[in-house]
Amino acid sequence: MSEGKSGQPGGLRLLLEEPFYQPVGNELGVFMAAWSKRLPVMLKGPTGCGKTRFLEHMAWRLKRPLVTVACHEDLTSSDLVGRYLIEGDETVWQDGPLTKAVREGAICYLDEVVEARTDTTVVIHPLTDHRRHLPIEKLGIELTAHPDFMLVISYNPGYQTVLKDLKPSTKQRFVGLNFGYPPAELETRIIVRETGLDEARAQALVAAAGKARNLKDQGLQEVTSTRALVYAGNLMGSGLNALESCEVAIVNPQTDDPELAEALMEIFRAFFPEKG
Amino acid sequence: MSEGKSGQPGGLRLLLEEPFYQPVGNELGVFMAAWSKRLPVMLKGPTGCGKTRFLEHMAWRLKRPLVTVACHEDLTSSDLVGRYLIEGDETVWQDGPLTKAVREGAICYLDEVVEARTDTTVVIHPLTDHRRHLPIEKLGIELTAHPDFMLVISYNPGYQTVLKDLKPSTKQRFVGLNFGYPPAELETRIIVRETGLDEARAQALVAAAGKARNLKDQGLQEVTSTRALVYAGNLMGSGLNALESCEVAIVNPQTDDPELAEALMEIFRAFFPEKG
Amino acid sequence: MSEGKSGQPGGLRLLLEEPFYQPVGNELGVFMAAWSKRLPVMLKGPTGCGKTRFLEHMAWRLKRPLVTVACHEDLTSSDLVGRYLIEGDETVWQDGPLTKAVREGAICYLDEVVEARTDTTVVIHPLTDHRRHLPIEKLGIELTAHPDFMLVISYNPGYQTVLKDLKPSTKQRFVGLNFGYPPAELETRIIVRETGLDEARAQALVAAAGKARNLKDQGLQEVTSTRALVYAGNLMGSGLNALESCEVAIVNPQTDDPELAEALMEIFRAFFPEKG
Amino acid sequence: MSEGKSGQPGGLRLLLEEPFYQPVGNELGVFMAAWSKRLPVMLKGPTGCGKTRFLEHMAWRLKRPLVTVACHEDLTSSDLVGRYLIEGDETVWQDGPLTKAVREGAICYLDEVVEARTDTTVVIHPLTDHRRHLPIEKLGIELTAHPDFMLVISYNPGYQTVLKDLKPSTKQRFVGLNFGYPPAELETRIIVRETGLDEARAQALVAAAGKARNLKDQGLQEVTSTRALVYAGNLMGSGLNALESCEVAIVNPQTDDPELAEALMEIFRAFFPEKG
Amino acid sequence: MSEGKSGQPGGLRLLLEEPFYQPVGNELGVFMAAWSKRLPVMLKGPTGCGKTRFLEHMAWRLKRPLVTVACHEDLTSSDLVGRYLIEGDETVWQDGPLTKAVREGAICYLDEVVEARTDTTVVIHPLTDHRRHLPIEKLGIELTAHPDFMLVISYNPGYQTVLKDLKPSTKQRFVGLNFGYPPAELETRIIVRETGLDEARAQALVAAAGKARNLKDQGLQEVTSTRALVYAGNLMGSGLNALESCEVAIVNPQTDDPELAEALMEIFRAFFPEKG
Amino acid sequence: MSEGKSGQPGGLRLLLEEPFYQPVGNELGVFMAAWSKRLPVMLKGPTGCGKTRFLEHMAWRLKRPLVTVACHEDLTSSDLVGRYLIEGDETVWQDGPLTKAVREGAICYLDEVVEARTDTTVVIHPLTDHRRHLPIEKLGIELTAHPDFMLVISYNPGYQTVLKDLKPSTKQRFVGLNFGYPPAELETRIIVRETGLDEARAQALVAAAGKARNLKDQGLQEVTSTRALVYAGNLMGSGLNALESCEVAIVNPQTDDPELAEALMEIFRAFFPEKG
Repeated sequence: MSEGKSGQPGGLRLLLEEPFYQPVGNELGVFMAAWSKRLPVMLKGPTGCGKTRFLEHMAWRLKRPLVTVACHEDLTSSDLVGRYLIEGDETVWQDGPLTKAVREGAICYLDEVVEARTDTTVVIHPLTDHRRHLPIEKLGIELTAHPDFMLVISYNPGYQTVLKDLKPSTKQRFVGLNFGYPPAELETRIIVRETGLDEARAQALVAAAGKARNLKDQGLQEVTSTRALVYAGNLMGSGLNALESCEVAIVNPQTDDPELAEALMEIFRAFFPEKG
Repeated sequence: MSEGKSGQPGGLRLLLEEPFYQPVGNELGVFMAAWSKRLPVMLKGPTGCGKTRFLEHMAWRLKRPLVTVACHEDLTSSDLVGRYLIEGDETVWQDGPLTKAVREGAICYLDEVVEARTDTTVVIHPLTDHRRHLPIEKLGIELTAHPDFMLVISYNPGYQTVLKDLKPSTKQRFVGLNFGYPPAELETRIIVRETGLDEARAQALVAAAGKARNLKDQGLQEVTSTRALVYAGNLMGSGLNALESCEVAIVNPQTDDPELAEALMEIFRAFFPEKG
Repeated sequence: MSEGKSGQPGGLRLLLEEPFYQPVGNELGVFMAAWSKRLPVMLKGPTGCGKTRFLEHMAWRLKRPLVTVACHEDLTSSDLVGRYLIEGDETVWQDGPLTKAVREGAICYLDEVVEARTDTTVVIHPLTDHRRHLPIEKLGIELTAHPDFMLVISYNPGYQTVLKDLKPSTKQRFVGLNFGYPPAELETRIIVRETGLDEARAQALVAAAGKARNLKDQGLQEVTSTRALVYAGNLMGSGLNALESCEVAIVNPQTDDPELAEALMEIFRAFFPEKG
Repeated sequence: MSEGKSGQPGGLRLLLEEPFYQPVGNELGVFMAAWSKRLPVMLKGPTGCGKTRFLEHMAWRLKRPLVTVACHEDLTSSDLVGRYLIEGDETVWQDGPLTKAVREGAICYLDEVVEARTDTTVVIHPLTDHRRHLPIEKLGIELTAHPDFMLVISYNPGYQTVLKDLKPSTKQRFVGLNFGYPPAELETRIIVRETGLDEARAQALVAAAGKARNLKDQGLQEVTSTRALVYAGNLMGSGLNALESCEVAIVNPQTDDPELAEALMEIFRAFFPEKG
Repeated sequence: MSEGKSGQPGGLRLLLEEPFYQPVGNELGVFMAAWSKRLPVMLKGPTGCGKTRFLEHMAWRLKRPLVTVACHEDLTSSDLVGRYLIEGDETVWQDGPLTKAVREGAICYLDEVVEARTDTTVVIHPLTDHRRHLPIEKLGIELTAHPDFMLVISYNPGYQTVLKDLKPSTKQRFVGLNFGYPPAELETRIIVRETGLDEARAQALVAAAGKARNLKDQGLQEVTSTRALVYAGNLMGSGLNALESCEVAIVNPQTDDPELAEALMEIFRAFFPEKG
Repeated sequence: MSEGKSGQPGGLRLLLEEPFYQPVGNELGVFMAAWSKRLPVMLKGPTGCGKTRFLEHMAWRLKRPLVTVACHEDLTSSDLVGRYLIEGDETVWQDGPLTKAVREGAICYLDEVVEARTDTTVVIHPLTDHRRHLPIEKLGIELTAHPDFMLVISYNPGYQTVLKDLKPSTKQRFVGLNFGYPPAELETRIIVRETGLDEARAQALVAAAGKARNLKDQGLQEVTSTRALVYAGNLMGSGLNALESCEVAIVNPQTDDPELAEALMEIFRAFFPEKG
């Protein structure tokens, strides 16, 4: 689980080792085409399906530094663009992560941008059309983006509500790449690689997850993620009973409802019948 | 996609090269008449139909500097007018973008002004009637506008709600110019010019968009913009399969609904039947 | 559209040239009577019907300086009364516009006061009864008003809602002057004077506006203002086609509804049948 | 309308001349009894019925300085108690109006206290029971009240809503004095005294107001106040037509509804039939 | 009504004279048992029934200093724990009242804690379980409580709503002592002692209150408190008519409804039939 | 109730004596397995069932320092990560508790994390996946976690509402350990150990609690916690009557409803029939 990457001040990370990413379709080709035209890209898909991994892989492949900003309800445009700090007697300007990326030609990744405050979407608009500049109101300048700058956002369609959704005028400024959970064979390979688990038990995990994901319509807010399967595999790998691993890594985090939990456990018991 | 413009501190941009703009009706004549009387102008229309381009074109034509402010929920009158900053021991006043435009006779463009906080609309009122002055409460002065100052706002009628709309008393202070997506022939010409795509595929894109726009009543929040067509053209130009280009540039950003997405893909498949 | 007035620091304006105002009823007599007793006055009426002009005219007539404060949702009592500013090592008190008017005997005009935060109405209460003083809590003093101080507010009855209305206890502290759009002959004279348009077209504009105002019950939020007619006249005067002038100056700003817009255009076509 | 009072820094006013107050019942006796035990008092009643006058009269009679705080939605306990100010290099504590009254033995009048933020009611609780102290959290002290300190609040029962009402536990900490509009003869005497109007017209005003007050159930938010009658009398006194005076001083401020306004005018026409 | 207590800076009060408290049940025994184990205590009961007095009595009895914090909607954990103040060039930490009590072993009384912001309940949690420490995030320390520190809160069950209630997980951290109004004989004794009124009239007051309290189900938000009876007794003692005393001290503060007021007055008239 | 632990500045506590914890199932084994893979852990369960104790026990067992943050509605990511403080002329960065734990390899416990503001969940996301880093936006760095850093959160399923719940994408990032109240025999042993009460009365307490917990469906928000039983045992140990101990430690804090309280008392009377 350790990774080779050089940390730089400023949040720009240059990934030195290839992050493992298993392509499902032509997502690499589409991303490269968008990159060649510097079109902004939106990664659409559910939690834990590999969007962040994919982008880290592309940044490594393009040898561009990557800046990731996890967006939340209190994130404002100043958090992205920068602000004045007081140092001794002086007021000193400090670039935010987006400004750094714009200046230095990095890939800037705004993860779950819909969570951020609305002024952030306004700030990114001029970066996503023919202007490609970033207005920095507090400095009174408009910064033209470095030719290698690229903007990427992520978006989870399952979460949006009437109150919280990207405006159509924002979405249409991005090339959209759809993501989902990988097919069974691929997911098995990922688990083996990530956890060192034997192939048989990895297959059983994926097969059970397939059945469990069918329970979505029965009240689960979201289906079992690949990440949860990797957690279960890790616990098994450290010697914990398979069924107990599934219970604590998959079932407990997914539901508080005793009946739904029992329904999920039923599935895992079928695939891991041995006791311990 | 690069542009010739000289960046000046303060957000005033003087456009040195002609920004491409393809007129649809008499919008240039109306704008010139409003300009000759210095009447404030409101650009009405949907996303990505060329309002910003039009204004950049007019600013270039009139040889007036342009100040653009993208409005958002947290934008206050102080962001427009200016504020005191602390520099060392002193408090220094810094003009905001609107004040700069008022002083120096620029065109000030408040993009989607309805998003801004209500105090901003109050600040612009005295600039839009016979007084043509800007009250700067914090300095205790009322600034009379430079004779060449002009105020322009944009407004997207499709977005307004009961909670968020310009007051009638504000709208009636502006000359209103209506914008829409360009007719097919014009839109084709724009795509060819912007992407370098061959005329045949550009025509197919526009024809498909025409059909796709008819789906608006079936649940699309907004129809395909000219900008999305340009994105698709760009991806094709960089070698991506036409259908895949339409999917990622047009369909994915426009809807999360699998059935609507399929309905849109049907249309594009009809116009781009070849595989690859 | 230029005006003769001497700008003074502090927002006090002494109007040196007579602002044009065409009386409709006995509003001058009532205002003079209220002034002779220094009773506070409330100007009631719709947007763009001349309330601001009337008050500028009265201030000129009384030779009293005028302070105008456009109220909005974020305007607090501190914006009216004053606040401490930090200058170098010192904290310096700065009078707000209301305090200046109270000290120097000006007319203070709070435009659309209902929009301001509720603490502002509290601040003006002691100025509107027998006390005629202004409490300045931050200075710990109560300022007795200059004998020539007068308070005037405006109020648009069409806008009030349950959530946002002046309290009856506030309204009853003012003498109320009702305003409306001027009768046809008067409105024609205003347009001729303000735009230099020929009498015939000015009459046609006013007659058309009369018909258009009847559409109010069909969904228009507010009827055509005198100001919008002046805009249309100005555009005609700068050579724009009459019908196009009405469309952009009157119809487009007033409605986003295509059918209502067409209904309005029908009216203007009847009065301006020529094409161009 | 001028008054003899000496302004003191700190908002403490010592009234040197007797403020005119016409008692209706035994309110003077009750107040004196509450004062002799230093019990806190709540003045209950509608707008403009003389609560403020009554208290000024009592302060004059008791020769105690009076501090009046008009409460509003943004008034916090710090506004009452005090705060730190920065002066040059130092942070200096400044007493608020309540603290001054507590220290110096003044009468502190919190006008419409229900409008203030809830932390203010908490601050006054320990002043209204056997403790009679004021906690000043920022100074870390509890100030025992001067023996002559007295707390008075006002409260308008007609305005309270479920969302905005004094808590029963707060109300029960006060002796409650009910106020209403004075009986006809008394109200006539007040108008004559305040405006110098002849008795006949004053009687007509009061009689008309009596009828107008009966319209309350037909949609008026609040009935005609004594203050509005004084305004109308003042306008008549300055030469304005009686009916016009009633219209602008009483009818216009009280309603925006044309039918209610006409109903009110009917009443005044009956009492002032002459034209001019 | 004066009291012997030594004021100390910091809000810690050491009560030197015994505060009068008349026990109703075994509340002293329970409190002593909780104190011996340093268990936190919650005083439950309506307004004005003597909770604050009881705690002052216990603090005097235990010879521990007492810190009282009246909680309100804007009270934050910083108000309890402390904050940094700027003094000249330095930032100086100032302990809040809770921190002082924790350090010095005082009894800290959070009056109506449910009114405070939710972060306050979080701050007190670790003080109410086996940890008995106070986390001071801004100093980065966890303060272990002085062995004599004790936490007491009050809680009025009649006021709680779905939106504003202590969480069950908070309530279960306290030993709960229920309070109510005292039985008739006791309440009579309290009134005699507090007001010096003769026993007969005190008995009449209590008897009338008993009847008045039965009206609770007819629309009174809260029943007559012992405090209101003491007020009425005080007014009688200062020579005011008994019935008028009851009206202004008990009826007026309790209801704005004329019919309820009349119903209450009926009761008091029955017990105080004499006129004056 | 005293404990052996060394307080360190910075909120890191190294527990030197074994905190008593009575395992119910395999929670120690699961936690050790998660620890060996450094997987983040979520402790799920009702109030007062021993989650905090369990974690203190594990921290002692693993010999890792523990940082506890009690989350609340106003807790922001800055409270966790750190902020700039002004010291004299300098702005100095101060690590928050999470940052300290990340740097020094402590266990960081976010108690009731769902109460905190949403930006906190965003901050912990990158610490819970393969990245294991903490973005510190204000410093412009991403801190890679110390190899011994571990993140633990608690979560009470009974409290969650539609408005306030952890997002599924957050929950799935944790291994979930379910907690409940211990079985009778165990709970008895805990009470004996914590209070020194004799076994018979401890058994009676637990048996009565078992019956009382069955009343949950009759309107109790939450059932009797083990902590409340310990409180009751403590009061008995200090000589208070058993029934009175149960009333004040268990019944009063649990309900304001007289009928529910009586129903609970019925149960305790059955188990503690003796009077005193």
